[in-house]
Amino acid sequence: MRRASLHGEIDLSAVTFLSPVQEEIKLVEERMRTQADNSHSDLRAALEHLLAAGGKRIRPTVSLLVGNMLGAPLEKLITLGAAVELLHTATLVHDDLIDGSLLRRGMATLNARWSPPATVLTGDFLFARAAIAAAETDHLPLMKLFSETLATIVNGELTQMFTSRGLVSRDNYYKRIYAKTASLFEMTSRAAAMVSPVDETVIESMRDFGYQIGMAFQIVDDILDFNGEQATVGKPLGSDLHNGLVTLPAIYYAEANPNDPDILSLPNGGWTNTENMTRLVDNIRASNSSNQAMREADQHIDRALTILDSFDNCVEREALENLAKYIVDRKV
Amino acid sequence: MRRASLHGEIDLSAVTFLSPVQEEIKLVEERMRTQADNSHSDLRAALEHLLAAGGKRIRPTVSLLVGNMLGAPLEKLITLGAAVELLHTATLVHDDLIDGSLLRRGMATLNARWSPPATVLTGDFLFARAAIAAAETDHLPLMKLFSETLATIVNGELTQMFTSRGLVSRDNYYKRIYAKTASLFEMTSRAAAMVSPVDETVIESMRDFGYQIGMAFQIVDDILDFNGEQATVGKPLGSDLHNGLVTLPAIYYAEANPNDPDILSLPNGGWTNTENMTRLVDNIRASNSSNQAMREADQHIDRALTILDSFDNCVEREALENLAKYIVDRKV
Repeated sequence: MRRASLHGEIDLSAVTFLSPVQEEIKLVEERMRTQADNSHSDLRAALEHLLAAGGKRIRPTVSLLVGNMLGAPLEKLITLGAAVELLHTATLVHDDLIDGSLLRRGMATLNARWSPPATVLTGDFLFARAAIAAAETDHLPLMKLFSETLATIVNGELTQMFTSRGLVSRDNYYKRIYAKTASLFEMTSRAAAMVSPVDETVIESMRDFGYQIGMAFQIVDDILDFNGEQATVGKPLGSDLHNGLVTLPAIYYAEANPNDPDILSLPNGGWTNTENMTRLVDNIRASNSSNQAMREADQHIDRALTILDSFDNCVEREALENLAKYIVDRKV
Repeated sequence: MRRASLHGEIDLSAVTFLSPVQEEIKLVEERMRTQADNSHSDLRAALEHLLAAGGKRIRPTVSLLVGNMLGAPLEKLITLGAAVELLHTATLVHDDLIDGSLLRRGMATLNARWSPPATVLTGDFLFARAAIAAAETDHLPLMKLFSETLATIVNGELTQMFTSRGLVSRDNYYKRIYAKTASLFEMTSRAAAMVSPVDETVIESMRDFGYQIGMAFQIVDDILDFNGEQATVGKPLGSDLHNGLVTLPAIYYAEANPNDPDILSLPNGGWTNTENMTRLVDNIRASNSSNQAMREADQHIDRALTILDSFDNCVEREALENLAKYIVDRKV
C-alpha cells in the first residue's frame, strides 16, 4: 500500500537520509583511513583508493541512524560503522578478485591495478582491521556477532561457488541473498541497538529492520541487473544470468514460462550460450517478472517501515524511513 | 652454555613435550573439525584435508601447556588452541596460494587441488571461524590481541611483498620473522596466561616466552632452508635465496664476505640468476654462517628457559622446556 505511491514519484536522493549523519560519516571515513597508518605506503595508497571509490556508506549510515535514535554513545557507533564498512570493503576486494572484475562503481578495482597476491593480502588486511575495529567497541556479544556474520558471508560465497550454475531455486536464492547482503545489514542495525541503552525487544526489532532492508537491497540490485540503465549500472544487462546466476526476476519468469527452452536449458549449462541468454534477458525484461520481484522488495520495505512506526518520531527515524524508501527507489 | 650440550646429543622427539597434552590436542582438533559442520560438504572435505595435513600442532600445545601450568580452565585453552591453529591454517592457505606452492609437509596444498577463488574463500572462511573461536573465549582483551596479531601477520606479508627482493638487512629480517612467526607464538603464550588466574607480571613473562621461542622457531626454519636434508625439508635447499629472500645465514655470510660478487648482486636482482645463487648457497653452506645464526636461535631459547626457571617445577614446565629445546634441535 504505502509503497505503491512511491515508485517513480520522487527522486529520493541519498541526501535525504544522509544529512543527519553527514559529519559523522566523515568521522567513520577518517577512522577507516587511520587503519593503515602504521603500514607500508603502498597499502595506505590502496586504502585511499578504496575509500575514494567509496559508495554511499549506507551501512555506516544505518549504524549511525539506528544508534543515534536509540541513544548509543557516538564513539561506539563510529567504531562500529568503520568495522562494518571495512568488512564490507574486504569482501568486495576478494569478490572482485574472484570474479576478475576490473571496475566497481566506475573505478578500477584493486585487482585491476595490483597482482592477485597483493589483492588477496589487502583483503586479509582489511578483515584484520575490521576485526580490530569491532573489538574496539569493547562489546563481546557484538564481537561474536561480527565474526559470525563474516562466516555467514564467506560461507554463502563458498556455497554459491560449489552450487551448480543455472540452478532455478527460490530457496537457494533467498539463502544466497541473505548471506551475501542481508546478513551484514541485519548485523549492522542489530549491533547499533546492542550498544544502545535499550532492551532485547528493541534489539530484535532493529535486527529485523536491518534484515528487511538488506533483503530488499539485494532484490533491487538483482532487478537493476535486468532493468537498470546500462550506463548507470555499469555492466552489461543480465550479467548475472550470463554468469549462470539465476536471480528473482528470472525465477518469476521461469515460474510463468516453465517450458521456455532457454529456461529449460539453464541447469544443463544453457547459460553459457550468449545468444540464447541475450534472448532470455530480453524476454525477462519484456515480462512482468521484475515488477513481481519489486513487489517482494516493497514488502520487505513495508515491514521495515512498520517496525519504525513503533518508535517515537525523530529526525533519525525519518531518515531511516527515507533510507528504506531509497533502497527500492534507487536507480543504481 | 646450556644449549651447547644439546645439539646432536639426543634426538628430542615431539613426544617429550606433546605427551602431557596429547588427549587435549585431540579435543582441539575436534573443535577445529566442527567449524565446518553447517557448511557445504566440499568445504568440510577441505577442512578435513587441511587437518590431515596437520603438522605438530605446536601452537595449541603451547597454549595448553602454558595454560595448564598456570591453572586456566581447560575449555578456554581448547577454544584458544583451536582459534590459534585455525588462524595459522588460514594464513598458510593464502600463503600457499600466493606463492603457488603445491606441496606443504609432503601433502598437496589446497590450491594444488582447488581453484584460486575457492582457495581464497576457504582461507577467508578459516579467518572467520578463527575469529568466532577467539570470541568464544569470552575474553575481550584476548579478542583484541587476536585481531591485532592477525593484522601484524598480514601487514608483515604485505611489507615483504612490497619490499625489494634481495635486500640484505638485519633490521628488516628481524621485523619480518617477528610478523611472520614470532607474533603468533607470542600471542598464543600470552593469551593462555591471560585466561589464567595470574597477575600482569606472569602474563608479561609468558608473552616474552612465546616471543623467544617464536623468533628461534623461524631462525631455525631459515637455517634448515640451507642446511636441512633436502628430502626432509621437502623443498630445494636455499629456496629462500632463490626467491630473493635474504635470511639470517645469508646475512651472516654477507657480513663476513662483503665483496662476494654474488652477495653484491643481490639487491640488483642477482638472486634471479639460478647458477649464481646455487654457488652462493653452496658457499653459505660451507661457511660458518648457519652456526652463527644458530647461536642466535640458542640465545632466544636460553632466554625462554630462563623465564621458565622462575616457575615451580611441574610436568607442564618440563614439557615447555622440552618444547623450547626441540625448536632448536629439530631437523624439520
